[in-house]
Amino acid sequence: MSRRAAPSPERSPPLPETIRWSPDGTGLLILDQTRLPESNEERLLTTVDDIEEAIRSLRVRGAPLIGITAAMGVAALARRRAREGASESELRASIAAWIERLSEARPTAVNLIWALRRLSASIETTFPDPPALAEHLAAEADDIRDEDRRMCRAIGEHAATLLADGDVVITHCNAGALATGGIGTALAPIYVATETGKTVRVYADETRPLLQGSRLTAWELSQAGIDVTVLADSMAGSLFASDPPDIVFVGSDRIAANGDVANKIGTYGLAVLAAHHEIPFYVLAPTSTIDLDSSTGSDIPIEHRSPEEIRRGFGSVTAPEAAGVYSPAFDITPAALVAGIVTEWGIHRPPYTESLATAVGRARRPRA
Amino acid sequence: MSRRAAPSPERSPPLPETIRWSPDGTGLLILDQTRLPESNEERLLTTVDDIEEAIRSLRVRGAPLIGITAAMGVAALARRRAREGASESELRASIAAWIERLSEARPTAVNLIWALRRLSASIETTFPDPPALAEHLAAEADDIRDEDRRMCRAIGEHAATLLADGDVVITHCNAGALATGGIGTALAPIYVATETGKTVRVYADETRPLLQGSRLTAWELSQAGIDVTVLADSMAGSLFASDPPDIVFVGSDRIAANGDVANKIGTYGLAVLAAHHEIPFYVLAPTSTIDLDSSTGSDIPIEHRSPEEIRRGFGSVTAPEAAGVYSPAFDITPAALVAGIVTEWGIHRPPYTESLATAVGRARRPRA
Repeated sequence: MSRRAAPSPERSPPLPETIRWSPDGTGLLILDQTRLPESNEERLLTTVDDIEEAIRSLRVRGAPLIGITAAMGVAALARRRAREGASESELRASIAAWIERLSEARPTAVNLIWALRRLSASIETTFPDPPALAEHLAAEADDIRDEDRRMCRAIGEHAATLLADGDVVITHCNAGALATGGIGTALAPIYVATETGKTVRVYADETRPLLQGSRLTAWELSQAGIDVTVLADSMAGSLFASDPPDIVFVGSDRIAANGDVANKIGTYGLAVLAAHHEIPFYVLAPTSTIDLDSSTGSDIPIEHRSPEEIRRGFGSVTAPEAAGVYSPAFDITPAALVAGIVTEWGIHRPPYTESLATAVGRARRPRA
Repeated sequence: MSRRAAPSPERSPPLPETIRWSPDGTGLLILDQTRLPESNEERLLTTVDDIEEAIRSLRVRGAPLIGITAAMGVAALARRRAREGASESELRASIAAWIERLSEARPTAVNLIWALRRLSASIETTFPDPPALAEHLAAEADDIRDEDRRMCRAIGEHAATLLADGDVVITHCNAGALATGGIGTALAPIYVATETGKTVRVYADETRPLLQGSRLTAWELSQAGIDVTVLADSMAGSLFASDPPDIVFVGSDRIAANGDVANKIGTYGLAVLAAHHEIPFYVLAPTSTIDLDSSTGSDIPIEHRSPEEIRRGFGSVTAPEAAGVYSPAFDITPAALVAGIVTEWGIHRPPYTESLATAVGRARRPRA
């Protein structure tokens, strides 16, 4: 009964390790999420090409985990370059090039840019030698990951107060352990509530085109012994009409200053359904997801995915070549449809502008 | 330029033949819709097992076409049995057994039951010999198909008045030529408007789990030279928010007396989105789809499909075995969200009860 096991402080119930350093610290071992649930495989990344490809092709995905991967990736590459004898100026030039390249790997998730900027800022001082600079980057990347774990736990504890014993949650995409360094964002309160003895059931939208809901959310929840039911995205309406869930929890890839939320395509439709059925709709994300430079959702760039993800779903021809394809990867849920935004600082209620700005300000203060 | 060709009266622009008699009339040749768009194959059905399997596994699908297939199927089987020398009482017993069996092949589509009841009623008189009885059934089945063609054309002409040059339509599933004996129901006004020189663009929801939108609607529209764009079901919200279509057209598998509409799963979510964005939502179906015995949508039985359609989308493992699956094949759109119901008699407006009952009454009158 893994769900009843005594929790380790930051990552329980036993959850998959999404990313770790390779044994010598000059590479990353990631859980290849494109292979789940069919197979559970680690993949070694040792070059900037490897890391960029892993992010672009969604081998690692989820806004927080993308940030962690990019930060650990740059640090691993720096260690390797330092061990190969690069001078400090050569090393700094390489780091700048890697950061520039990885910043563009996925345009919507702001955590990626946030993590890389933080890494960049952390090496503005001087260092005794290139290996020391590289180790400093690795320590900063470890901090980003460890903070993410604590933020996930804090989000889970705040949002678990929204759940009663027996509640049914619906979620979209995967904002779980597989999307973060910790117990997830949208799924974190489900893990926390389960640890404290509440029974919570979950509906997971399958999340076309790449099925992160059925492949990843259903997998990690069932691994943790939590009752999860998969449905096609189009079936949520029928569920709301016949046997409505108690609450909606989703993650986010970027939250604008006014509380508009970019998240996986389909989130907006779920929010409209929830509003129509008067079911509360919550967004759970660390403050690193809040982008005060985007005033509203219309300032957030939306990535479009390859038409092939629609034309050849899983290998077969699923649409004729002659047809066009519309395939945005994200949509914008207006703040007006969001009952609350849960960050590591607590549950923010509308209007969001002041409250989100305060949270970002607190997160920017020097750590104790 | 097939779209500009002079139209044949009932089935233009050139559209696929969905069903026909085998050369000797004792079997059916159907276009196997499970193989589209990858391949365009006919399949011969010669036994009741073949016919039932073709309906259950969606080789033929679409409420009107299912009714036609069942009627032509029973007639083909009767011809074969009569040629084999069955007595009239043996033949009548077989026909009753085939009708009972096929009536249960798909529970939601009322046209199936409607067509089989009509066939049954048509042989309540006496016949000179078993072959004459069988030929009478075949003529009745031909009538059902020919009337369906005329109904499709009439629906298309009524609904085409709702379209202006340059309009953009969104549809769900396939309620086109492939779902009927004619030019379809929801797609009929698109063909009619195109024939009369209007340019109409179409968005087709892919329609999980079986992708009738991307596989079938996109295929038949692009074959007819009409501009069609496929999107995953979850992307409709983003489209409505960024570049809304002018109108929604869907078909139906059963319409209750009060105007509640059963149609392919996902239709209700699309109706809620349309209401949220104030886009008119129309249902197009022949009167054989109206079931006055169902007072409201809650009286309509909803078929649930196999969990494997979700667990193994297109062959790959797309959800873990440990997860439950929720997979209703249809949902109910309440009449309150429906701007109009278009039948062969015209555009019905809410409240629907009296208007739909009148249409059914007209359809039941003896034909001239």
